[in-house]
This record gives sequence, C-alpha cells and structure tokens, in this order.
Amino acid sequence: MNYVYYASLGVAVLALFYAFLLYRNILKEDPGTPKMIELSNHIKRGAMAFLKREYQILAVFVSLIFVVLLLAMNTATAVAFLVGASFSSLAGYVGMRAATDSNSRTASAAECCGIPKSLSIAFNGGSIMGISVVGLGLSGLLIIYITLTRMLGYTEANTIQIITGFGLGASLIALFARVGGGIYTKAADVGADLVGKIEAGIPEDDPRNPAVIADNVGDNVGDVAGMGADLFESYVGSIIAALTLGITYLDGTFVTEAITFPILLAGIGILSAIIGSRFVKGKDGVNPHSALELGTYISGLLVIIPAFFLSQALFGSYRPFTAVVIGLVVGTVIGKVTEYYTSGKFRAVKAIASQSKTGHATNIIAGNAYGMQSTAIPTIVLALGIVAAYHFGGGLYGIALAAVGMLSTSGMTVAIDAYGPIADNAGGIAEMASMHPKVREITDQLDSVGNTTAAIGKGFAIGSAALTSLALFVSFIKASGISGIDLSNPLVTAGLLIGAMLPFLFSSITIQSVGKAANKMIDEVRRQFKEFPGIMKGTHTPDYAKCVDISTKAALYEMIIPGVMAVTVPIVVGFTLGPEALGGLLGGTLGSGLMLAIFMSNAGGAWDNAKKEIEQSGDKGSEAHMASVTGDTVGDPFKDTAGPSLNILIKLMTIVSLVFASLF
Amino acid sequence: MNYVYYASLGVAVLALFYAFLLYRNILKEDPGTPKMIELSNHIKRGAMAFLKREYQILAVFVSLIFVVLLLAMNTATAVAFLVGASFSSLAGYVGMRAATDSNSRTASAAECCGIPKSLSIAFNGGSIMGISVVGLGLSGLLIIYITLTRMLGYTEANTIQIITGFGLGASLIALFARVGGGIYTKAADVGADLVGKIEAGIPEDDPRNPAVIADNVGDNVGDVAGMGADLFESYVGSIIAALTLGITYLDGTFVTEAITFPILLAGIGILSAIIGSRFVKGKDGVNPHSALELGTYISGLLVIIPAFFLSQALFGSYRPFTAVVIGLVVGTVIGKVTEYYTSGKFRAVKAIASQSKTGHATNIIAGNAYGMQSTAIPTIVLALGIVAAYHFGGGLYGIALAAVGMLSTSGMTVAIDAYGPIADNAGGIAEMASMHPKVREITDQLDSVGNTTAAIGKGFAIGSAALTSLALFVSFIKASGISGIDLSNPLVTAGLLIGAMLPFLFSSITIQSVGKAANKMIDEVRRQFKEFPGIMKGTHTPDYAKCVDISTKAALYEMIIPGVMAVTVPIVVGFTLGPEALGGLLGGTLGSGLMLAIFMSNAGGAWDNAKKEIEQSGDKGSEAHMASVTGDTVGDPFKDTAGPSLNILIKLMTIVSLVFASLF
Repeated sequence: MNYVYYASLGVAVLALFYAFLLYRNILKEDPGTPKMIELSNHIKRGAMAFLKREYQILAVFVSLIFVVLLLAMNTATAVAFLVGASFSSLAGYVGMRAATDSNSRTASAAECCGIPKSLSIAFNGGSIMGISVVGLGLSGLLIIYITLTRMLGYTEANTIQIITGFGLGASLIALFARVGGGIYTKAADVGADLVGKIEAGIPEDDPRNPAVIADNVGDNVGDVAGMGADLFESYVGSIIAALTLGITYLDGTFVTEAITFPILLAGIGILSAIIGSRFVKGKDGVNPHSALELGTYISGLLVIIPAFFLSQALFGSYRPFTAVVIGLVVGTVIGKVTEYYTSGKFRAVKAIASQSKTGHATNIIAGNAYGMQSTAIPTIVLALGIVAAYHFGGGLYGIALAAVGMLSTSGMTVAIDAYGPIADNAGGIAEMASMHPKVREITDQLDSVGNTTAAIGKGFAIGSAALTSLALFVSFIKASGISGIDLSNPLVTAGLLIGAMLPFLFSSITIQSVGKAANKMIDEVRRQFKEFPGIMKGTHTPDYAKCVDISTKAALYEMIIPGVMAVTVPIVVGFTLGPEALGGLLGGTLGSGLMLAIFMSNAGGAWDNAKKEIEQSGDKGSEAHMASVTGDTVGDPFKDTAGPSLNILIKLMTIVSLVFASLF
Repeated sequence: MNYVYYASLGVAVLALFYAFLLYRNILKEDPGTPKMIELSNHIKRGAMAFLKREYQILAVFVSLIFVVLLLAMNTATAVAFLVGASFSSLAGYVGMRAATDSNSRTASAAECCGIPKSLSIAFNGGSIMGISVVGLGLSGLLIIYITLTRMLGYTEANTIQIITGFGLGASLIALFARVGGGIYTKAADVGADLVGKIEAGIPEDDPRNPAVIADNVGDNVGDVAGMGADLFESYVGSIIAALTLGITYLDGTFVTEAITFPILLAGIGILSAIIGSRFVKGKDGVNPHSALELGTYISGLLVIIPAFFLSQALFGSYRPFTAVVIGLVVGTVIGKVTEYYTSGKFRAVKAIASQSKTGHATNIIAGNAYGMQSTAIPTIVLALGIVAAYHFGGGLYGIALAAVGMLSTSGMTVAIDAYGPIADNAGGIAEMASMHPKVREITDQLDSVGNTTAAIGKGFAIGSAALTSLALFVSFIKASGISGIDLSNPLVTAGLLIGAMLPFLFSSITIQSVGKAANKMIDEVRRQFKEFPGIMKGTHTPDYAKCVDISTKAALYEMIIPGVMAVTVPIVVGFTLGPEALGGLLGGTLGSGLMLAIFMSNAGGAWDNAKKEIEQSGDKGSEAHMASVTGDTVGDPFKDTAGPSLNILIKLMTIVSLVFASLF
C-alpha cells in the first residue's frame, strides 16, 4: 500500500501550495494608506524580530538536544528531531508572516467593502497558518517515514521509534512559542494598558503609546505562533501515538492497516479543512460567527464520512471509525463547554459581572469558583471518551485514533484561531491611522467573534493536549517495556505526587515571569513619556522598537527555567527512579495539569468577558467596572500564559519520556 | 501481650481524666465582669446551637450510613461506625465547651495578671480539645479492638476490617465539622466585616454589630471543632492503616508485633503530649511563641526516644523506628515551609504586601504565584518521605508508621490550634466589654502567635491527611484483593482524571457556598440596622441569636451536596467501574487535592498576613491596604473553607473505599 503514503504526502504538499496561493492573493489586496502600511510594517518587523531572537535561543537548545540524541540514541532520531523542530519553526514563520501581512489589508477591505471582504481576508490570513501547520506536520512525518522505510530499509518498528524524535522537535518549538509567546504578549499588554491607558489616560491602540506596537505584535506571537505550535505538536503527537499503538490493535493482526489508517485520515483531514474553509463567507448583516461555525462543521463531516468507509475497507470493522467519531465529539463538547463558561451569553460570565458590583474580591472569588467548576464536564467527557474509545474503538489504539480524529480538523481550528489577532490588529491599525469609525465597528465585530472562537480554541487545545498525551503516555508504557505502572508501588505514588505538583510550580514561574517582564515594559514606557514630552503632544514618534525588544528579551529570558525544567525532569526521574516512577510522574502531571489548565483558561476567559459585559452595559468607569478590570488583569496570565503553557508541559514531558524510554 | 492493649487504653482513659481536671481548674478561674460573662455566654450558646443543629443533621446521615453498613457489610462494622461518629462528636463537643468557657477567663487573667496566666488559661483550654481528640480516638479504637478480639472471639484480620468502620465514622464527622464549620466561620466573618466595618463604619468586635457573636462563634467552629475533627480522623486513620498493613511487614513474620507497635506508640504519644504541654509556660517579656515551640519539641522528643527502644525490643530492628522518625521530620518540615510562606517575617508575604502598592490585581497575582510555588517543597519532602519510609522503614507498613509517627503528637498540635480562637475570642470580649486597652494588647499578642501556629497547624493537617490517605489507599489496594492499579489501564486513567477533577469541583462548591451564606448574613445585618436604629446608638441590643442561626442554617444546608458527593462517588465508581478505576480515582484526588489544598491554604495565609504587614506599617486606609484587603477576602474561603475541606475529601473518599473494598 505504498501509494497511500505518497498520496497523503501529495495532499500535504498540495495543501502547502494552496497556502502559498492564498498568501499571494492576500498580497494583491490593497494594504491601505501609507500610514497604515507604516503601522503594519512596525508590527511585522516586531513580530519577525521576536521570531528571529526566539529561533536564535532555540538554536542553542536544539543543538544541545541534537547532540544528546546523537550520543544517547542514534543519528536517525537526532535528525528526525531536527526536522520536527525545523518544520514547526517554519510553520510559525509562515503563519506570522501571513498574519502580519493581512492586518492592514483587512482594515482597508473593511473601509472599502464591508464585512464580507474583510472577513475573507482575515480568515484567509489565518488559514495560511492553519494549513501550514497540518501540511508541514504531515509532510514532515511522511518524509521521514518514507525515507527510512522505503529508501534506507529501516523496519517499521524502528522507524516509529525514530519518528518520536520528530514529535520531540515539534514539542520543543511549542514550548518556546507558547511559554515565551505567552509571557511576551502579556508583558506588552500590561505595559501598554497600565502606563498608557491608566497613567497617561490615552485610549487603547493610541499611536502615542510606545508599547502599542509591542501589544499588537503580542497578539500574533500568542495566538498565531503559540497556538499554531501547540496544535502542530498535538497533531503530530497524536499520529505518532497511533503509529506506536497500531501494533496493539487486535493483537497485531492489522499492523500495516493500523499504520495506514491514521496517515490516510490525516490526509483526508487536510482536504476537508481546505474545503471547509471555502464555506467561510461573510454576509452583511449576518454574524460572522455562523460562517466560521459552518466551515468547522463541514470540515468535521468531511472527515467522518470517508472515515466510515475507510474503517470498513481496511479493517472490516467500524471500530476505528468509532474511535475517530468519539474524538471529534469529545473535542466539540469540550469546545462548547468552554464557550458556556467564557461567553457573555451564559450564566458564569453574567454572575461574575454581577459579583463585580460588590467589589474586587467578590469578582475574583466568582471567577475562581466558576473556573474550578468548569473542569467538571470536560473531564467527565474526556474520561468517558477514553473508556469508550478503548472499548468500542479498538483498545489502546482506539484512544490514539480518537486523538487523531479530534485533531484531524486542526487546519480549520488553527485558521479560526489565527484569524482573531488579524482582526484585532486591523482594529488597532484603524484606530492608530484614524480611519473612519465604521472600520473600527466592523473590525470590532470580527474581533469579538474571534474572542469567542479563541476561547473555544483554547478549550480544544487543552482537550487535544490531554488526549494526545494520554495516547503518548500509553505509548511510553509500551515502549519502555514495563508491565505496567502500579499505583500501589510507593515509587509510583511518589512520582504521582511530584508530577501533580509540577503544573503548580510551572504556573507559578510563568505567572511571576509575566510580572517581571511587564515591570520592565512599564519602566520603559514611563521613561519614554518622561524623556520625550513630545510623544504625548503627538510631535515625537515613540521608540516602538525598543519596547518590542524589551518584551522579546524578557520573555525569552524568562522561559529558560521552565524550558529546562520540562525537558530535564522526566529524564532525571527516568534515570534515577526508573520508568515506573516516571510513569507515575506523567500521570500526576496529566491529572493536575489538565485541571489547572482548564481552570485557568476558563477563569481568565470569563473574567475578560465579564469586563466586556460591564463595558457594554455602559458602566465603564464605575466601581463594578474597576473590579472587573482587576479580574481581567488577574486572568490575563492565567488564560494567555500559564494555562496554555501547561498543555505543552504535559505533552513535552510525555514525549521526552517516550523518546528516551528505551534507555531507562 | 494483652497488657499492651489494656495499658494503652489505660493511658487514653487517664488522659481524658486529665482533661477533665484541666477543665475543672479553668472553671475555677474568674470569668470577669457580668458584661464579660454575658458576652461569653452568647458565644457559648451560639457555639452549642451550631453543634446541636449540626449533630441533628448528622444524625440523619449517620443513620442512613449505619443502615447501609448493616445491610451491605455486617453489624459489627455498623456499630464500629457508630462508635467512631459518636467519639469524634464527643471530642468536638468537649473541646468547644472548654474553649468557650476559657475565653472570658483568659481576658480576665490578662487584666489581673498579664501574659503568663492568660497564656496558661488559653492554652489549657485548647489542651482539653487536644487531649480529648487523642484520648477519645485511641480509647475508641481499643475498646472496639479488645471487645471484638478478646471478648467476642473475632480473628484479628476480621477485627481490623471492622475497625475501618470506626474510621469512617470519624471521617463523616470531620466532613461536617470542616466543611460546615468552614462555611459558617467565613459567612459570619464576611457578614460582620462587610456591613459592620465597611458600611456602618464601626470597629471590629463592636457589640453593636449583630453578627459579632456569630463571628466569634465562627472562630471556635472552624479552628476548634473543625481542626479537631480533621486531626481526629487522621489520627485514627493512620493507626487503622498501620493495623491493616502490619501483615505486610517482612511478609507477615511479625504480625502481632506490627499491631502492638502503633498502639503502644499512640499511648506514648498521648503521655508525651501531656508532658510537653506542661512546659508551655509564658513569661512576661518573652514571646509566647517560644513556649509553644518548646512544648512541641519536647513532646516530639518524648515519642522518639521510647520508639527507638520499642522498635528494637519488638522487632529486633530499627526499621519501624526509622519510619516513625521520618513521619515526624516530614510533618515538621511541612509545618516550617508553611510558616515560611505565610509569616510576615519572610519573603512571600513581604512580596505580596509590596505588590499591593500597584493595586488589587497585582496583589492577587502575587498571592496566586506564591501559593502555587509553595506546593513544591512539601510535595518533594512528602515524596521522599514515602520512598524512605518504604525502603528503610519496613515496606508499606513503614509508610503507615510514618503517618502514625507524624500524628503521634496530635494532642499537642490540636491544643495549639484550639488555643488560637480562645485568645482571639478573649480579645473580642475585651473589646466588646470595653476593658482596659492593655488587655487587648495582651490578647492580641497571644492571638498573633496563634495565627502563625494555626498556619503551621494547617500545613501539618494537610501533610498528615496526605500521608494518612496514602497509607489508607495502600490498605484499600490490599483489602480489595486486586493485584495493583495499573495506570496503563484506560479505566484507571479515566478514574485518575475524574479523581483529579473532584477537588476542583469540591472547592468550587464550597467557595460558592461561603458566598451564598455570607449574602444571607449581610441581608440580616442590614435589616437589623435598618429596623432598629437604636442599635447604632447603643440603646438597643442587636439580635445576636438570629445571626448565629442564619449562619448555622446556611452552613449546614450548603454542606449537604459536597457531603453526599464525597461519600457516594467512591461507592458508585467502585460498583460500576470496579476497584481498579476506583484506585485511579483515589490517586487522582490525592494528587490534585493535595496541591490545591496546599496552594489555597498558603495563599490564603499569605494574603492575610500581607494585609497585617501593611496595617502594622501604618498604611491603614491607603490604596495598598485596600488591595491587601481584597487579597485577604479572596484568601478567606481558600484557607478556612475550601483548602482544609480537601483534607477531608481525600481521606473520606479513601476510607469509604476501604470500608466497602470487599464488595467491589
């Protein structure tokens, strides 16, 4: 069945070509006035400066791990690792470039032609990231797979082991993109808000604010590069887990089919995401939200139908199909629950807004309470999904397939997520370039849809991270050759406790890093205002680049400790306490990390929208509004830094363990 | 070795007699002026009213579970359960009575004779609770043990199984005392503060505040009855685990000795606590803190020395002794780390105080970050302790012995904890009865020591709950007869995830309950101020009883859902998904529950003391102070309701599983 691999590779490469066409079409659009172009260039240069410096630091890390893999494992794994890191970096680079080229064009389209065209540009800009993620992810995997098995004569079992290195590379990039990006975006945001809005009293997105460009860059760094790398990792990880666990399906009676199925499914997923994305078309007077939802549902459906026939054709059974459907359903439910807890339409956000009337403390208490409560349904759904995928979907392999199914439409998910910052940036440019107020109205509408979808996307990212890690965790157990991880073994229990602690420690570190980085930004903004009084008068252009640079340096510096921690802890535990204790550690991290991630993301999202509810009800400046701003500020590092970073921590620790499993 | 059981029972009964003597001596002291006596009576009546109503509701729960045990298990287990519930209730009743009889006498002693005498009365008042807890705990266990084995001819194995019912009874009372008490104390506190201090502008402990008595009652309900029942449960649970796991020591070569050792150790622990408590003597000009520390260290030492000889005499080995020492060391370290994170002397509290200067949000962020960070060292110490106790202390039995060792000095720990609210109440009475300011100064000094020790006690309670549950968890695995709990089994993993979620859901429920109960209290206080203007003028006595009643009803109503959840979830999971999944569930709850408990308790304690730091630096009323009040308010339900309740959740779920293990 050689043609399957080449066909899927062909789809992945064609998808990349499609992304290139999209990009070329965007560049043909009108970028607007010279002022708009200048602002857009500031943002683009800032984003590229961040990426460049991030990749410099990454180069050191990647080289170190490359050498370790060369010495401890083998050349093939080390090279696979390098390819994984490069492909993920490339996806991030392409996505950021496309996103920052789309913002002024979205604003310009809003001015000339209204919602449909501006939605189309913003969404196509995001699609480039989405399609790059799945296209590069799948093609990278397949290039390694085909090269090793078809050209270099490796056995399939060996190849699958080597391919985990590709996952490790993707994970490492995700760590830097998510954690570094999360610190960056919040430091810039806090710096811009605190000194600009509160101290100097100038509005949001005012060009006199020296941190305004850094703030706009931050949106891209967090939601385009960060989210993209996160889902790149999950996407790749789920496929790797399915390849690893294929041998367990019906005791190895369908080894080849079990490898073919997820690869074909991934190819189908890419096609369905492209087709689905063609259905995202705005209409004047219709909420863009429904267009995005339509695209999502279509791409989901276009995975389900072929999966049905494929499952029957390859295995003569609907079990693998069932697993795929379970994954898609679990992902959708988790997304919907996230929407319930973070959208202003529902009870949690309304309650937090109402609790803001009695002060800062009650706002925080309500956010904490709803955030904690929001862990319940996603966890139960996930647990049921695991059990169902195992029982009806073909054992452990079924669990991995559920993850593949959930992530098969990642092209669409990432596109929707990356669309948010483009719309947001377009609004910023409209404001800074003093465009017609209707432009801001349109971009605000696009942006508000983006906020909801971003929250859903975060929920989806968490769910997929959990399911992927779980599948990788099971793969680790199989790969390390231990008979099981018995909780009645005190080493395992000790590992479990330490593992459960790590997400708390990790979150503490990242939250404090945001504070430290934000302080540096605050000092810089204050300094510029003080030394150049012309800035406030509008006669002196602030030094935007300096602010971008500060946020970049601080973010990347702050992420070194958590980065080292995530990579070394599993290796140290594996070597000193053995694979069973390491298994306990991973289980503990998965359990408490998942809860903490859901809690922090949803509490943060709910606080954010509670503030917006109060603002929309016209109470801006009231005591209640002040309290809601407190909640939003507390929630910012929760939802944009610590929460999403935990996805990576969970996955990275698991894949590190999987790569080194044979050595423990 | 019959005499061992009778000797230990003798010690336990003698200890109760000693507590009675302490109580009689306290009653001989001067209760002060008629006004003071009246106020003290208000508090006492309020506390007793709470207990009475709590016990009424408990009677329903206890009867239900009694019937279930009768039908599902056997009469002996059902009766053991009843005895456990009764003995824990009795300890709570005695302790509350003694504490509420000591408060006005402490104030009166402070007026006549200064620190030494008032410290002595307050501490002796607390000691009654401490000694009742260990005296009733051990005597209850031994009465059942001796009756069954020596009089009714049960085998030891059967008896140990039955005795788990005693632990279940203790757990159920602890749940009501901790959760209900935690909700009560915070509802009253918030109600008194928000309407009295902030809206009406009257000082704390002002007799014109209708909620002031409820507030003072709350201190006793939370820190005397709640903490006492919590440690009663841990104390009893650790001994039960040691009895259950005795058979695993060196493959059952020392079955009798393995049962004798923890029972003797408990007897020695009671004696050492009594002796240690005699060393707690205040001196004018010397910080009472050192007196309390001296007592603690002496009682610890008095356990270690006999344990050394006993271990050699019974087992011809120092392994069991090593386990005991490990437990004591782990408990002490966890207490010290708690002090580091919650005392104004160290960095965390100072940093939170300093972050308050930039507003409410930064205060909250700093508290969250330090609270999360504070999970690291206790977890690592606990994990090392588990592994060390297993390897050097005699296998799984060693882990149980470490818990017994840690809890052997519970008499002292509870005494110090119960002393806090007595000193606090004495201060309240001094204020309300307009006593000489020097009285308030003395009680404030006693109270501030109490706050630190209470924080340490909370850390100790968490650590002991974790170690006890772990020992009970291992006992559950042995008792259920399964070969292990394998994390690579998807049912176990699903259980782990749901288990990790429960502490978040539980905390969310209890935090929201505090809010609901507090709102009822706020409405009532506002109503009284509005309907009776004479209250503010001091011409009309407020209806204290009504406020006490509201807090009582609300607290007990709110705790029904979490109570039912904690008891039924393990049973439902055990019956539907089986013992392996239940084991995963317990592991998940232990891991995430421990972290969440440490995080919430320490963050709450740190916020509280950050506020005090700012007040002491003379910035009362400043912006920074307002921000620190927000932190304190957010931290209150964290540290006094949700955090400590998780100890009970973890233990109760484990012991429910252990009791019903044979049925799954």
